[in-house]
Amino acid sequence: MNTTATAPLSPAPDDEIEHVALDEDYVLTPAFVEKVVDAADDGDGMKLRSLLEDLHPADVADLMGFLTAEHRGVVTVWLPADLLAETLPELDDGIREEVLERVPHLTLAEALQELDSDDAAAVVEDLEDDQREKVLAAMPEVDRAAIESSLGYAEDSAGRLMQREVMAAPAFWNVGDTIDHIRKQGEELPELFFDIYVVDPVNRPVGGVAISQLLRAPRTTALTEIMDPVNEITVDQDQEEVAYIFEKYHLISAPVIDSAGRLVGQITVDDIVNIIQEENREDILRLAGVSDEDRGSSVPEIVRGRVPWLAINLGTAVLGASVISFFGATIQQIVALAVLMPIVSAIGGNAGTQALTVTVRALAMRELNSSNANRTFWRELAVGLANGLLLAPLIGLAAGFWSGDWRIGAVIASSMVLNLMVAASVGVLTPLTLSRLKFDPAVSSAVFVTATTDFFGFLIFLGLATLVLL
Amino acid sequence: MNTTATAPLSPAPDDEIEHVALDEDYVLTPAFVEKVVDAADDGDGMKLRSLLEDLHPADVADLMGFLTAEHRGVVTVWLPADLLAETLPELDDGIREEVLERVPHLTLAEALQELDSDDAAAVVEDLEDDQREKVLAAMPEVDRAAIESSLGYAEDSAGRLMQREVMAAPAFWNVGDTIDHIRKQGEELPELFFDIYVVDPVNRPVGGVAISQLLRAPRTTALTEIMDPVNEITVDQDQEEVAYIFEKYHLISAPVIDSAGRLVGQITVDDIVNIIQEENREDILRLAGVSDEDRGSSVPEIVRGRVPWLAINLGTAVLGASVISFFGATIQQIVALAVLMPIVSAIGGNAGTQALTVTVRALAMRELNSSNANRTFWRELAVGLANGLLLAPLIGLAAGFWSGDWRIGAVIASSMVLNLMVAASVGVLTPLTLSRLKFDPAVSSAVFVTATTDFFGFLIFLGLATLVLL
Repeated sequence: MNTTATAPLSPAPDDEIEHVALDEDYVLTPAFVEKVVDAADDGDGMKLRSLLEDLHPADVADLMGFLTAEHRGVVTVWLPADLLAETLPELDDGIREEVLERVPHLTLAEALQELDSDDAAAVVEDLEDDQREKVLAAMPEVDRAAIESSLGYAEDSAGRLMQREVMAAPAFWNVGDTIDHIRKQGEELPELFFDIYVVDPVNRPVGGVAISQLLRAPRTTALTEIMDPVNEITVDQDQEEVAYIFEKYHLISAPVIDSAGRLVGQITVDDIVNIIQEENREDILRLAGVSDEDRGSSVPEIVRGRVPWLAINLGTAVLGASVISFFGATIQQIVALAVLMPIVSAIGGNAGTQALTVTVRALAMRELNSSNANRTFWRELAVGLANGLLLAPLIGLAAGFWSGDWRIGAVIASSMVLNLMVAASVGVLTPLTLSRLKFDPAVSSAVFVTATTDFFGFLIFLGLATLVLL
Repeated sequence: MNTTATAPLSPAPDDEIEHVALDEDYVLTPAFVEKVVDAADDGDGMKLRSLLEDLHPADVADLMGFLTAEHRGVVTVWLPADLLAETLPELDDGIREEVLERVPHLTLAEALQELDSDDAAAVVEDLEDDQREKVLAAMPEVDRAAIESSLGYAEDSAGRLMQREVMAAPAFWNVGDTIDHIRKQGEELPELFFDIYVVDPVNRPVGGVAISQLLRAPRTTALTEIMDPVNEITVDQDQEEVAYIFEKYHLISAPVIDSAGRLVGQITVDDIVNIIQEENREDILRLAGVSDEDRGSSVPEIVRGRVPWLAINLGTAVLGASVISFFGATIQQIVALAVLMPIVSAIGGNAGTQALTVTVRALAMRELNSSNANRTFWRELAVGLANGLLLAPLIGLAAGFWSGDWRIGAVIASSMVLNLMVAASVGVLTPLTLSRLKFDPAVSSAVFVTATTDFFGFLIFLGLATLVLL
């Protein structure tokens, strides 16, 4: 939870041109970015600071993404320390690692104390081992303990995601007790909170009260009278599951409990929005065979993430080629087949990718499980058949006309219908099988699907042609 | 904003097998879905009702997605009226339309009064014209006016998304005034709210106070002392822009203003989460050439959404084939070329899709604009070259060895390097150009990219081969 989040710099009126950093949609203007670049090039630190100091941390992070590594270095030096602290959790991982290398460990230790425990832990996580030790050693005991406890939970777990600051109230309190407590203990509570968790004597949540409900109720009302059941998150739950629960039930915050059921923290929806975007990003990129990369990634890093998929694809393409080579004699007699065969495989690949993408998305949204897997399969097969029956006559006529041999038209038309049904089957079954085996259904599905449609596309078309035409 | 959202049915302990609808991750169990199907098949309405009545509306919506249209019909009849009302806003569009056709208009008119204005409007929007008139006529004037006003805003606009219920306070109030007002007027306020908007005498927001801050402050503190600047949303802003602002600044709620700057409603983050998922879904599906479809779509609906893309792809595949046909004489002399050419085009297509997907995602996240477009292009080109230099020797050696002609190896290796650079260029430039022309960069990009890499893959490979080998 970023506690300064409610006060970004609003877009300025038109007459204050000098300070217009954002356009009307709260996006950084290229003109502003250019101003920063110019100031960095001139080494004009005062100018840089005056440009940056009024920005919201999220906008500084955005700015960093638009700069080169060199310019980021200059900006990092001139950023006010408190703004730097609040910017760190907003940065892309790659950029954050790079920025962290330039910040002296004492500055960093001080900056981290400004952040909530979850944000501070997220930053410390990205430090190199030796820098991490130095930074933690320079922090007060209580902050260090909070960060170390957070890092004790698995990456991507609810424990890592939660903030330890939470507003809990014993079940015997009434509304007045609670409001008085908040007013007195305000400093120790999270800066922003949305629900009060009602706990039993051993600190297990028994319900939750939205603070708008608390405000509405008379002071003498018991908390237990106005509380609702809460969705408890356990510390070891995966962040993707947590996001699913928040999204499904429209939660604003939820209590996190340890294995004994005791309240140990809370997760708020603004962190969930980030997770949802992260997971979506992963799904989209994985479907395209791109491992994690971001704006800060260097060319070698990007190549390392992409070339393995291309290499696998090279292997499957060779497999497809071996099918063609098997029919070399047929092609030598009828060169038209070499011209037409990529059409069959291309349409198959596209239709397979359509079925695959729909299935991967349904799995990610938990809209697909054993209750409707069969029905989904048959529906996709019917779609494949229908697509085939619509498109095959077109290509059949065109190919027959072009080649002057109507049998070639018939061969390509029937191959296309068959390959579209192969595409539908493999498009559904690949992610379903991966998911059942507890693998990520998005990873490598696309390569496998297009490999299959290429393979069968060539095999069916050239096979039928050999049977019919020779 | 779904006001019952904080109280879903928790997963039950193991011994209450009869009522276990959810597994430990709050996902409906296939066993429960089967029970519902059995009860629907038996026409056992009492059993159905007992299974359904304790479910959270989000779980009923999930259940609907797992059922066939026929079973959905039976469930709709037996669903308690208030649960039906709260379930309607949660349903996929296709399923909602289907369910709405089965609900008598008086039941519906009554159900809609239970909902917040934004949810009610979302449901009414999906009604057929004649049913809509009947339903609105059967509602009290005040609810009808709210819904009609909401529907007066453009689809996907902030006006459509906002709820009209909002907590505003004049700038001269202090904390005590505000709390007393909330306690007195509680009924007229939104059931859940997170920020109080401070307004000037003509109802223009001048700031916002998080209610956790309100609770913390002494009763005599003026609101203007503790308020923060707010991010104002205008009624005609597109929901995608609204989602961007919420996400970037970690907002929980934001005031919506009309063209005169007056406060007319608020948008809360839980609605934003839905929008984000909707936009992500669209991006993923569009990249694969799938128009909008959901679990409720019939086979003809799905085919209508997918076949146009396949037809376009058929056209581009014919274009690629025409390149091959141009080199028919070369292929007739060296059949090995027909075997190898799909390898060059396949790797190009994959690399192009990688570059495309990364670019589309960066555009969607507003991480890419004229500040860094040039740099992104050159980076992708460098990645293309590096990928080519890594993979080309592999395929060159393999092809040379297999064909027994090292010149063929050299031709395929150099073609691959060139085509991977074509792929990188077209992968970046296609979405960038579409975006600059104000088109959705995801739509049709993939078809264009693979068409280009096929075309140039065949052209470069067969062209070089003709030059070198003949």
